This record gives sequence, C-alpha cells and structure tokens, in this order.
Amino acid sequence: MGLRDDVAVLPGRPGHDLIVSKDAMTEGVHFLSGEAPEVIAQRLLRTSLSDLAAKAAEPFGYFLMTAWPPDRGEAYRRAFTRGLAEDGERFGLVLLGGDTISIPGPLTLSATVLGWAPHGAAVLRSGAKPGDRLMVCGQIGDGSLGLRAAQGLIPDAGGHLARRYRLPEPLIELRDALRRFAHASADVSDGLLADVGRVAQASGCGVTIDLDRFPLSQAASGWLACQPDEVSARLALAGGGDDYAVVCAIDPADEFAFIEAVRARSVPVEAIGAFAGEARLTVLAGGEEIAPKHLGWRH
Amino acid sequence: MGLRDDVAVLPGRPGHDLIVSKDAMTEGVHFLSGEAPEVIAQRLLRTSLSDLAAKAAEPFGYFLMTAWPPDRGEAYRRAFTRGLAEDGERFGLVLLGGDTISIPGPLTLSATVLGWAPHGAAVLRSGAKPGDRLMVCGQIGDGSLGLRAAQGLIPDAGGHLARRYRLPEPLIELRDALRRFAHASADVSDGLLADVGRVAQASGCGVTIDLDRFPLSQAASGWLACQPDEVSARLALAGGGDDYAVVCAIDPADEFAFIEAVRARSVPVEAIGAFAGEARLTVLAGGEEIAPKHLGWRH
Repeated sequence: MGLRDDVAVLPGRPGHDLIVSKDAMTEGVHFLSGEAPEVIAQRLLRTSLSDLAAKAAEPFGYFLMTAWPPDRGEAYRRAFTRGLAEDGERFGLVLLGGDTISIPGPLTLSATVLGWAPHGAAVLRSGAKPGDRLMVCGQIGDGSLGLRAAQGLIPDAGGHLARRYRLPEPLIELRDALRRFAHASADVSDGLLADVGRVAQASGCGVTIDLDRFPLSQAASGWLACQPDEVSARLALAGGGDDYAVVCAIDPADEFAFIEAVRARSVPVEAIGAFAGEARLTVLAGGEEIAPKHLGWRH
Repeated sequence: MGLRDDVAVLPGRPGHDLIVSKDAMTEGVHFLSGEAPEVIAQRLLRTSLSDLAAKAAEPFGYFLMTAWPPDRGEAYRRAFTRGLAEDGERFGLVLLGGDTISIPGPLTLSATVLGWAPHGAAVLRSGAKPGDRLMVCGQIGDGSLGLRAAQGLIPDAGGHLARRYRLPEPLIELRDALRRFAHASADVSDGLLADVGRVAQASGCGVTIDLDRFPLSQAASGWLACQPDEVSARLALAGGGDDYAVVCAIDPADEFAFIEAVRARSVPVEAIGAFAGEARLTVLAGGEEIAPKHLGWRH
C-alpha cells in the first residue's frame, strides 16, 4: 500500500497497541565506514527490533528513510535492499513505505519499526517495583569489545567480537517470558549501567547492580582474563554500548520460572541485582561498592 | 511515552485505520540553504500533513529524525523546536518519539506523520472510475514559481510566491468533503501532471486534463500574463512541484455539491478534466491536445 500510494494504511488490530521504535544511523558514527551494505541495512533494522523485543512486542513492518551520498551506485543499493529483504523474511517484517533522498554527505538512514502488543501488555521501562530482581538476558560487553576488535585495536580470534558489534541479534525469542513475568524491561543499547539506570529512574526506584555477575561470551571472558584490573575492566564492559541484551525487573517469586523460560530459548540469563525503594544507583564490583565518580556516565 | 521510554505505545482507535506519511528533506535540495529553522521544521511537518489531508485522514502525531551538522548551535535548534511546537499546536500533532544524531553533512530530516481514518474511509489514489470528474482544490503553480522567486529569478511583489514555496498550507479543511464525495485523491507535491497521472494509473483509468482551467493565485496569474507563450507557461506550472493542492475524482452527479463543500471552506476548486476507461493521459491547453513528447515528465 505504502508503495502504491503516498501513504500507508494500517488496519488496527483489535485489542492491541501499536508499539513503535525509531532509530537513525549515519556512516562512520553508528556503523563503520566501508561496512557492507547488507550489514548496514540489517544493523539498522535490528537495533529497532531489539527495542521491540525488550517490550515483548511482535514486530510486523517498518518505514525507511534513506539519504544516499552520490558515490553509492546501483550495485550498492541492490545489496542494501537484499539485506533488508533477508531480515524482513527472517523477522516477519514488511516494508510499509518510506522516502529516498540524495545528500552531499554520509549515508544516513532512519527506520521506524512497528509491532503489536495486546493492549496494556507492552513491558515498559516504568514498571519495576522495590524488591524486584534485576535480570540480564544475553551477554554484556561484546558490543564495545566488538567495535574495538573491528577497528583492529584488540585481538579477535575467529572474528566473534567484531561480528557481534556489526550485526546484533535482537532477542525476539524472549517475548513470551517477558510478557509473562517482567514488570519492566529495556534493551541494552547504550550500556548496561545507563540502561539499567533509566529503568530505575522511569520506575521511581533505586537499584543495585553487581558487575561480577553479568553473562559474558567466551571471547569477552578471554579479554577480561588478560586485563590487569578486573574491576575497571568490568566497569568498561558495563559502560559500553551496542550489546542489545535485555535487562528486566522480575518478582523474586518468579525468578526461577523466568530463568527457566529464558534458558529454554538458549539465551543466557543472570540475576545481577535488585531494585530498591530509595532512588539511588549502587554498583558493586569485586565485592565492593564503586564510588559514583568512577562510574563514568556518558549520557 | 516515546520520550520516557525507548518506544512509543499507541493504543488503537477502534474501527479506525492508521494512516502514515513519511517525508525526508535535506538542506539545499528540499529547502533553501540558510532557511529559517522554524520554517524548515514547519515545512517538514506540512508536506506530510498535505499527504494525510488528501487522504481525508485526521493527523494526531509524528516521529522525527534529525541529523544535525556540527555548525547548528543551541539557538538554532531551539528555533527549530519552536517551529515544531507552533505547528503541533495548530494542527493537533503530538511528538511521539524520534532520534537525533549528528552528521558531517547537511541538515537532514525525516518525519513520519500519523493520522486516523474510519476503517476503509481513507481516500486512496486507486478509486477513480471512468466518467469521474477530475477536480483540483487549491492553486497550481505557486510552488514552482515560489522557488524561483525565493532564488531571486522572477519578481515577487509582497513576497507571496516565495512564502508559498517555503511554507505550504496543507488543505486539512477538505477532510469532510473528500470523505463524503471523493473516489480517489492525492496531494499535488510533484506537479499536477505527475500526480494526476499517478491517480489514473493506480485506478487503472485514463484521464484528460485541461490546463486552461486550474485555479491560479493572483501572483501566478500576473506571471502568466507576462509570458510570451501561454501554453508553454501553463505546462511549466502543471509540471512544477511543491503546490500542495489536492486532486481528486468525483462522480459527476456530486460535482456541484463537492464544489459547494470546498468553497464553503474558502478553498478554490475547479473541474479540470475527466477520467476515462482507456488508459491514456490526454493533456489539453489552448483548446488543443498537447503531444506527449512535450509533457516533459520528470519522474
């Protein structure tokens, strides 16, 4: 419809809310200069899919804005479209409409990804309650290590880390477990500490995070083992972005059922802290509390 | 919600379809370099509002992507936001969410504007029937003349033309008349001939357009009176873009009721042709048919 008309017409889904995530990217900032066009297309869709996954929404389509620099020819654009089509197929997304322009500047993209959730069932940032467990699903640290690996700054046997940075895997398989158990949820795109902090803030809670406990990939564990100061290294991983893991608030009574539901989907999951009544962020590492001035907030 | 969470949650409106229009713009191409930031913001929203107006949809909100070049400071961005807020107030639009990035390139913007229409009531390009009158609501030619006026290429007493190019007036007041009478409709953003051609094509019809009959502003009439060849001049106006008028297909039995309903909203309206069974575009000017090779399709 969006491609035959100048608007898209989306019939409502009775009893459902529309959940919308918007992400913009520009070459050399949000993806590497010279990245493969298929990968750029998929990275764009997947960052928004990760947002929708954390909300337990069911993605179904997207709008796309592409601003092409003059040096991208037909073959490049075809490869970009192929990347979109592959991920569209894999994640059940239809291109609903969009706009294509030319700019005398870097490749700049924006996707607006739409999903459905039963009315009131989307899991927002704002529902955590004091006493809830803070859970993390997926691994922390591969995103920021992967960027450094892709830049050749750290070793990366087999290219695992760089791949994880370039092409995130949104945790769409968490939908049922989050919808059933989570009081609040967010994806980890700006860093574990920042995103957990926002959940606590939106929920009017405090939170304690234990940095000794988040799931790590083998590659990140290997990197960590070589660092002179484990506490600083764990803080760096918790402060880096692009992990596309999910953090959520779970009633302690549901902790084991939630862990079982997540592990059944082959996603690593750990309890890494708890929400509290007092609006304060407490970070533990190496068994001790880290002073706030060492947290290095970036946002 | 979009500003407190990383997604927006839009409860469905029972019995309604969501109508979505997306427009992208970059400085120096879609608006003049050095344009006032308030005007840029409003031009962005209004081009999409014009799409929704032609579909008889009721706009309610928008998502925004802004890619700022490094030289735009706080005051510039505040003025841009002020422009958004003013038009938001005027047109009943809420900012639902968005993404802001920095780019080493020209100011680049994308808006996704959302509206509601009762289920099945949006007026699409595709509903024209052979025998329907082709109507144009609003004036033709001010957009392309206005761009030339803003560039100092033609005289523009009082600045009427340049103002019409810089800041379109979407014809949202046509909603009731279009919903009640129109079989098909589109806004005129790429030029009268191009947009009428697309309505005919989407409807599987042909169409005859008489270029002697479209509404003109006083300023455009004045320009036309000074041109050596009226037929060529009318063709140029019908081929230019940025008019943000509306073309639609109306049953001949409804023609006068439609004209009355549109004039009651102080919008000029004229019958300028008719849809036909044979899939052919016929253009008349100066009482004669123009050969297709002179139509100068740009799209």
